[in-house]
This record gives sequence, C-alpha cells and structure tokens, in this order.
Amino acid sequence: MNDKKVIGITMGDNGGIGPEIVLKALFHLYPKLDFIPVIFGSAPILFRQELKEWAEKLPIRFIFGWNKLELGNIYFYSVSDYSDITIGRPDARNGRLSYDYIQACADAIRLGPVTAMATAPICKESLQMAGIGFTGHTTLLQHLTGGKNVNMAFFTQRLKVVLATVHVPLSKVSEALDETVLTKAIRSAQHYGETLGIEKPRIAVAGLNPHAGENGMFGREELDLIQPIIGVMQKEGLDVQGPFPADTLFHRAYHNEFDIVVALYHDQGLIPIKMLGFHDAVNITVGLPFVRTSPDHGTAFDIAYQGKASASSMIQSLKLASKLIKHGA
Amino acid sequence: MNDKKVIGITMGDNGGIGPEIVLKALFHLYPKLDFIPVIFGSAPILFRQELKEWAEKLPIRFIFGWNKLELGNIYFYSVSDYSDITIGRPDARNGRLSYDYIQACADAIRLGPVTAMATAPICKESLQMAGIGFTGHTTLLQHLTGGKNVNMAFFTQRLKVVLATVHVPLSKVSEALDETVLTKAIRSAQHYGETLGIEKPRIAVAGLNPHAGENGMFGREELDLIQPIIGVMQKEGLDVQGPFPADTLFHRAYHNEFDIVVALYHDQGLIPIKMLGFHDAVNITVGLPFVRTSPDHGTAFDIAYQGKASASSMIQSLKLASKLIKHGA
Repeated sequence: MNDKKVIGITMGDNGGIGPEIVLKALFHLYPKLDFIPVIFGSAPILFRQELKEWAEKLPIRFIFGWNKLELGNIYFYSVSDYSDITIGRPDARNGRLSYDYIQACADAIRLGPVTAMATAPICKESLQMAGIGFTGHTTLLQHLTGGKNVNMAFFTQRLKVVLATVHVPLSKVSEALDETVLTKAIRSAQHYGETLGIEKPRIAVAGLNPHAGENGMFGREELDLIQPIIGVMQKEGLDVQGPFPADTLFHRAYHNEFDIVVALYHDQGLIPIKMLGFHDAVNITVGLPFVRTSPDHGTAFDIAYQGKASASSMIQSLKLASKLIKHGA
Repeated sequence: MNDKKVIGITMGDNGGIGPEIVLKALFHLYPKLDFIPVIFGSAPILFRQELKEWAEKLPIRFIFGWNKLELGNIYFYSVSDYSDITIGRPDARNGRLSYDYIQACADAIRLGPVTAMATAPICKESLQMAGIGFTGHTTLLQHLTGGKNVNMAFFTQRLKVVLATVHVPLSKVSEALDETVLTKAIRSAQHYGETLGIEKPRIAVAGLNPHAGENGMFGREELDLIQPIIGVMQKEGLDVQGPFPADTLFHRAYHNEFDIVVALYHDQGLIPIKMLGFHDAVNITVGLPFVRTSPDHGTAFDIAYQGKASASSMIQSLKLASKLIKHGA
C-alpha cells in the first residue's frame, strides 16, 4: 500500500516543549531527510510567534490528499485549529488535544498512508483532567490498536531495556508481576531484538530484590516466579538468562554481555538509561503493528516556548523510527 | 592516643577473593603508603601458594606489640591460624572467621592503636551458616560499636549515595520507610558530607515511585511521608531537597547539582553507582565512631585464588580511608 517511509509526528501536550522540539528536530534533520514527516497537531500553535524561528524556515505543507506525499517536504495534518492554549501546566484542553493527535495518527497508520509514529511528550495529568484514563502512550496505543504483547522499551546505542511494568507504585510491583506479565515482557524483548535485526537476541532478566534475592534471603520472587518462567522460555528456544542482580546487570549489558535487559519496574530500567543517555535515549513501544518511538523525557512545562528545549532525544527518536521501518510495511 | 594513620584491613571471607585483593592492593600502594596497614586474618591463608607472588614481595611483619608500628611496614595481626579452608562457596568456618577478623579489628580501634577499617568482602550466606545473624558489614558494625545513625553509603568521584534501606525485599521497602529511617538517612548524608569536608552538603532525596509518584497518581509515600520529613529537616537548617524522580536524579547529581543523594532502597542507589564506577566505587559506613570503607563488590567465589581478581576497588577504598582519617582521631 505504501512504499515510502512516512513518519507521523504527534505534537504532544501543547503546554510543554512538544511543538518546539518537533520543529527543532525537523529543522535539524532537514534537508537530509530520508523519510517523509507528517505532523499531527494544531496549526495556530505550530505557527506561534515563539516558534516562528524554526517553523518559517521549513517547507511545511498542509495535507489535502494522502496520495501526494513527496520526499523532501514536511507535511502538516490539522487535527484541530484551537489556538487559545494554556502554557506551562497541566490542562484539560491540552490533554484532549494530545489524545486527538495520537488517535488521528493511529488512524492514518491503520488506513495506510503513514507507516510509523514518533510522538512528542504528553502529560498524564492533562489526560486525567480531560477524563482520559491512560497513564501514557504505551497503554493508550495498546488500546487504540488492540495490541496484546505491547511493552515500553528504551534504546540507547549500548543499552536496550524492556520494562515489564511501568507506572506501578513501588509497593505494588511484586504483586503486579505474574507469569503473564513476565512472559509478555520476555517475548517483547525477543520481538525488540528482531526489530533491531538481531535474530536471537541475548536477553537478560533483572532480579527484583537486592542481590536478586540472594537465594531467597531477601525475597522469594526470583525463586518462585522469575527462574521458573525463564526456564520455560529457554525451552521454547529463547536465549534468555537470569534473574541477575540488578545493580551489576546494566553495567554488564552496557559492556555487551547481553543485547536486551528486561527490567521489572520503571526506575530499575530508567535509572541506567538516563544515567547514560540523557539526551539521546529513545522510548520505543514494542509489540504494536507499527514502529513507534518518542523522546525519553517529559513535557518540561517550566521551559515551554522559551527556545531552550533540547531536541536531541526527539531527533534520535525520528532517526531510530526511520531506521526501523521496513520499506513497504 | 595515636597520631599515626593506622588502617586495619580485614581479610573477609576466605572462600572468595578477599585475601588476594588485600595483597594486590597493598602491593600496588607500596612503597608509597601514607598510612600503616594492619591486616587482620589468618596467616596460613595469606601465605598460600596461590598468593605467594604478592605476599613474598611485601614487608609483612607479625604484630607483637601495638606501640611499635612504623610507616613503611605492613603488619599482620593473627586472628586465627586455621588453614584448611573451603574455597569457592559459602562455608560456616569462613563465615565465623570473617566475623572474627572484623571483631578483632573493631577491638583494636576501640583500644586505640588502629584508626580506621577497610574490609574485604564477606559472604552473607557464610555468616548465616555460622549462625551469625547479620546481613552485612553495616549492621554488624552497628552492633559492634553501638552506633545509632549508621548507614551504608557509596563514594565515586562524581556521585555520592546514602542508602536509607539495604537488604530489604522490594515489596517491603515501602513499609520499611518511616520517619525514623528517613530522618536517620538524611542525617547520615549530612554527616557524610562533613566527613568529605563539605560543611553544608546539598542533599537530594530520591522518590520511591515512578516519577516520584506524580502528585500521588503512582503512589503516595512522597506526599504522605517524604515531603513532610524533608520540610522538617530544612527547618533544622539542612540543605535538603526532594523527593525527586529517581530516574533523572542520579544524572543530575552526577552533573554536580547535588553533593549527596539519599536513595531509598538498595538497587535504586547501587544501579547508578555501579553503572558509572564499577571498578572504583567505594562503600563507606557513615555514622560509626571511625572511618570504614570497603570495595563495592562481593566475594566473587567463581574466581577465588586464580589471580584474576581486580583490586582496583580495594585500592580506592584504602586511598579513601586514608584521605578521610583525621590525624589523631
């Protein structure tokens, strides 16, 4: 249906740095673009005075028909022309719009003209104020696409991580981990590796407790749950090992002992990713029917529309999306 | 009572790399030693064939009287002459001996001739098999010295961390954190900073939940417990802030926004420390009446007595102990 690489870019929460980093990233990548960008957003916001410096130098064209996309142009798909936005704090209207951009982009992917999605940061509180019950892109996209083995993952050059759980309070992580969740995360790691072109990725699973429980002395989840599941997956033919003490595991993976680490909870996986790759780590959603990437940072309300935001993670996420798209997908 | 820097070095669990890294570290530091080392251990083990390469080149003298220590020599205090050790796995006898070395060193510190302690790695399972109910040096030294505000902390050049809890199963961390534990950890961070020569250290406290709870959405410990305690400590005059999202906090501290981070649980603090400073991170016990350092790694049973162990963290821990000792302390 589509032999071009077309990446839909959602503008994110308009109260934050989303619109700015989308423009800055495209400004940086243009004119060496090897994909066709389509921005999903609101025109009056993209063309605000504060962003003029970047917007006016880019060949942005409004989309009227999906069949006329050409490499070298930047396209804009107008989801809403609402202009009177709130800046610098969570807001119901911005939450609603950020959801609408994603839905429009997902629709365009389902219909065919768009092949991948790169998203600017959204705000969970804005979504909540708008009455939208998702805590982030991953759960939202899982819902929109009906995906089953969907997991949040992260990419840096030397460290790749899949999160088994995401926005779970720390005290509830143990009970959130069960056979289904762990099996899904390990399968996602396998899928992630394949997406990166590694046929049989070396997958390592982190332990939950200090020293991976030290043989049950500091917790039993490793013995009762994680080890048995790893055994089952090994019998299925996956190259998966663990559980390993989390404090040293990420260092080992960073030094190429493993291709992908399954982290059991948010901060376990994100601390090492952000320690290393603060400005160029990319968030990937694994298990969707299409490639989806995003910067690994938030809306940064405190510096919105001030020209200060770094677009480096957005740039990396666009580059990675382009790299991972299979032509004709 | 003692105007020399005398560092007691405990040999650790004899089944592991302890004896080897003690000798290698001293071999590396000699003859430029600016402190007097006293090894607490078992002579037949220190002089085993596998370690001869290092031991025979060092001027090791047996201690007969505490008043004759001279800079330039390396002293040996014989705690036991047991030689028939088990190598490469947890063992009750090794557990008992590792405890005895520490106790003998702590006694020598209490009596006066030794001013600081640098410990080689011990094994919790060995201690348990010996019927000794401590999970590590920190709790053991707290018991031996009767210290009250004792906390485990870590040192690398650019990142310093105090752990509020240590060997607690992840599912129990939330209930282990209370006003007493948090207040003690923040006071330890202040004490740690002072030991490093920083009068008013900039202390940051990590959040417990993803995004530090995101205003209660992913957990309430930040709002109900951590924030109020930080407020109280600020009124006491401490420069303490937080709780901050843990995933970005360590990166911020690494880039000098804070001097010391209070991590709430083992892996939260150890993942960033080991990510960065795998071979030169040093473990410090804060709040004891003396300086105590150790490598941040374990017994490495799998490579014991093979000449392969890296002594770099042991070297750093001796250097740091020497730096932190106040003359005449």
